[in-house]
Amino acid sequence: MFEKVLIANRGEIALRIHRACREMGIQTVAVHSTADADAMHVRLADESVCIGPASARDSYLNIPAILSAAAITNVDAIHPGIGFLAENAQFAEMVEEHGFAFIGPTADHIRIMGDKVTAKKTVMDLGLPVVPGSDGPVPTVEEAEKVAAEIGYPVLIKAAAGGGGKGMKVAKRPDQLREAYQLARGEARAAFGNDEVYIEKYLAKPRHIEIQLLADMHGSCVHFGERDCSVQRRHQKVIEEAPSPALNAEQRAFIGNLAAKCTAAIGYRGVGTMEFLYEEGKFYFIEMNTRLQVEHTISEMITGVDLVREQIRVATGAPLGYTQDDIRFEGHSIECRVNAENPETFIPSPGKIDGYHAPGGLGVRVDSALYDGYRVPPHYDSLIAKLVVHGTTRNECLMRLRRSIEEYVIGGIQTTLPLHERIIAEADFINGTYDIHWLEHLMSK
Amino acid sequence: MFEKVLIANRGEIALRIHRACREMGIQTVAVHSTADADAMHVRLADESVCIGPASARDSYLNIPAILSAAAITNVDAIHPGIGFLAENAQFAEMVEEHGFAFIGPTADHIRIMGDKVTAKKTVMDLGLPVVPGSDGPVPTVEEAEKVAAEIGYPVLIKAAAGGGGKGMKVAKRPDQLREAYQLARGEARAAFGNDEVYIEKYLAKPRHIEIQLLADMHGSCVHFGERDCSVQRRHQKVIEEAPSPALNAEQRAFIGNLAAKCTAAIGYRGVGTMEFLYEEGKFYFIEMNTRLQVEHTISEMITGVDLVREQIRVATGAPLGYTQDDIRFEGHSIECRVNAENPETFIPSPGKIDGYHAPGGLGVRVDSALYDGYRVPPHYDSLIAKLVVHGTTRNECLMRLRRSIEEYVIGGIQTTLPLHERIIAEADFINGTYDIHWLEHLMSK
Repeated sequence: MFEKVLIANRGEIALRIHRACREMGIQTVAVHSTADADAMHVRLADESVCIGPASARDSYLNIPAILSAAAITNVDAIHPGIGFLAENAQFAEMVEEHGFAFIGPTADHIRIMGDKVTAKKTVMDLGLPVVPGSDGPVPTVEEAEKVAAEIGYPVLIKAAAGGGGKGMKVAKRPDQLREAYQLARGEARAAFGNDEVYIEKYLAKPRHIEIQLLADMHGSCVHFGERDCSVQRRHQKVIEEAPSPALNAEQRAFIGNLAAKCTAAIGYRGVGTMEFLYEEGKFYFIEMNTRLQVEHTISEMITGVDLVREQIRVATGAPLGYTQDDIRFEGHSIECRVNAENPETFIPSPGKIDGYHAPGGLGVRVDSALYDGYRVPPHYDSLIAKLVVHGTTRNECLMRLRRSIEEYVIGGIQTTLPLHERIIAEADFINGTYDIHWLEHLMSK
Repeated sequence: MFEKVLIANRGEIALRIHRACREMGIQTVAVHSTADADAMHVRLADESVCIGPASARDSYLNIPAILSAAAITNVDAIHPGIGFLAENAQFAEMVEEHGFAFIGPTADHIRIMGDKVTAKKTVMDLGLPVVPGSDGPVPTVEEAEKVAAEIGYPVLIKAAAGGGGKGMKVAKRPDQLREAYQLARGEARAAFGNDEVYIEKYLAKPRHIEIQLLADMHGSCVHFGERDCSVQRRHQKVIEEAPSPALNAEQRAFIGNLAAKCTAAIGYRGVGTMEFLYEEGKFYFIEMNTRLQVEHTISEMITGVDLVREQIRVATGAPLGYTQDDIRFEGHSIECRVNAENPETFIPSPGKIDGYHAPGGLGVRVDSALYDGYRVPPHYDSLIAKLVVHGTTRNECLMRLRRSIEEYVIGGIQTTLPLHERIIAEADFINGTYDIHWLEHLMSK
């Protein structure tokens, strides 16, 4: 077992990792920017090292500074957390070259999954379903018609160089294809100076379903069920729940086992998440995140397994020691991501916390590095707390969430708690009938 | 279902009941003394009524004031909480006479179990084991010898009028009986003016094991396993855990099922707890508490059942809707009772909270009505927080408890957190080898 671990991150996730280490009897080293000297993860760690100025580029992304901190404090391993360097293959490589264990997958796995085309090809070859589409750019409208007929309407024509919805057109029926194709190419040329376009099946109201995975270094892999993360704003998850209200037990087992089988097949190690779009009974692989995820909490709540502990344990080379049949699912869990933002405009609201009181009682978990008097710095992600509930039923979770939000006091700054209060009171949310566009529609009302 | 419930209590338990009501969509009415106007349960309740001055006799024990508050606020039911009027049969009777539902057992059951002699006789007749002993006072040393031979040595000779250890002597072997008998009578005469003595089997190192029960009004009763509450100081529980490190699955099922059968047999309704001494594989009934208990939390953690919700639900006349086989036990749970006391002298330490931060994260539950700036009044019980952890294993709980205590900030007053920190670091506690005298011995070291 590791004796000392450096946590190369900040905020609630640094605290989450610190807690797992503490409970395993592992000493912790916090690293921090000058803006985070008073942060909770720094206060609670056994040791701490300042690694640079406030700007993440100069501190939390500063690989030499982090490796130096690891060397001075003589740690056994480095946990990258979430974000920053967590999916940086070069960092994973350098950590190991410097003689530390990297608590995460191999650099190769980070690379493979970090490249969307390679990732998609890799999992397709292993039998995972992906969004059907053209193999590459489609040079003529005739070829576009052929591909569209093969994959079935509606289809999406999208710029190869695209992003932000530019050069993206939907053709619902064959008679719309020609116009959509030409418009997309025109927009792509204007926006990116490159008019190459792809064709993909268009999913009108998909849900975001992801599978939590854990693999050891000996070829064993288990899944911890799915999370439904369809409540999103600008591709950012806002509320996650497990299990998904949209899946039945058979679908759950199907996609979970398939994802675990593929993860084992590629020789993956550590925690990871395969993300899918889900529509009308079908799953479509989007990507694999080769790290812990913010919403790992809800999988922990319904399985009783400490995923960060397990992640650290398998990073030492320990075998899983259990199989899929040992993972038991109990009840329901929902997480609200509380951000330091105006709940209507989403403008960040950093500043000094004036009054802090987290809700408690049965089935309530708060993961937050906030404390009264703490100054939320303006330099980083605005996530300040994860309010997680667990209950026997989904309805119990909704009621528990409602009373927890009512009790939660975060003074001095604006937070998205009122947004969460609003979402969980919406009939569509209560009924579980939402897709990845639902929140955007709600917000634009 | 009830629409509105009056909570006739204060502190963390009033908050606990408020939370259950909120999550059931039930409105809450808080009652409070003048000393508790700023209390958390008052702040969070839908309505509140001041029922008298600080002294509990004039407020939380003031039956007419509570009934008036219930009448003015037009509630459906009254929850007595723990302590104060929770085991007052007359109160239960008056609540119902005034047309409110009493969230608890019938007045008759409170009376039967409130009288130790009747309680013992009642459960003995139903086959529950009690501490073997003489049927009444033992008038001669010859009869004492006969009784002692029957029940087996060691025996305890104790004053019928006794209390506080006076007039209590142990005879380990037959040759010690005559002297012990005469000494006990002499002490009893001197202390109480009454030299009648009983004889009972002496348990040298018993554990306190109790069974959590829940019965509906239709004859169904289930148990939620046992709690080990042997870590006590002056008969006050300090730390409780479930399951008990001393029992195996067979013993657990035996005593749980027996207690549930007896509870059903007497036609009991609501939550209740049967308390036993346990030594060398044998259980001895002590008493039944006809109410919720402080440590109900740990049974909730290992079963996932909200016992206060269930208590309220069965009080409406609803059937349980599940059987013993549906109660599943997962993992381990430990509760530390945090008191506003000097952790060495146990002198109460009321006063203003200056800095409050509860621990969070996976497997940590805090039930507390404290908040920063709150003034802990000197008038009531010193329990200010229950720190409860849940984990896959007992060892995980111990580590989680350690890190939670480390994170817990309660400024401005003294608390027993350092005592808990000390206890959970003791080898005997870590090994689970403690009895009801263990903490007293530790404290006197």
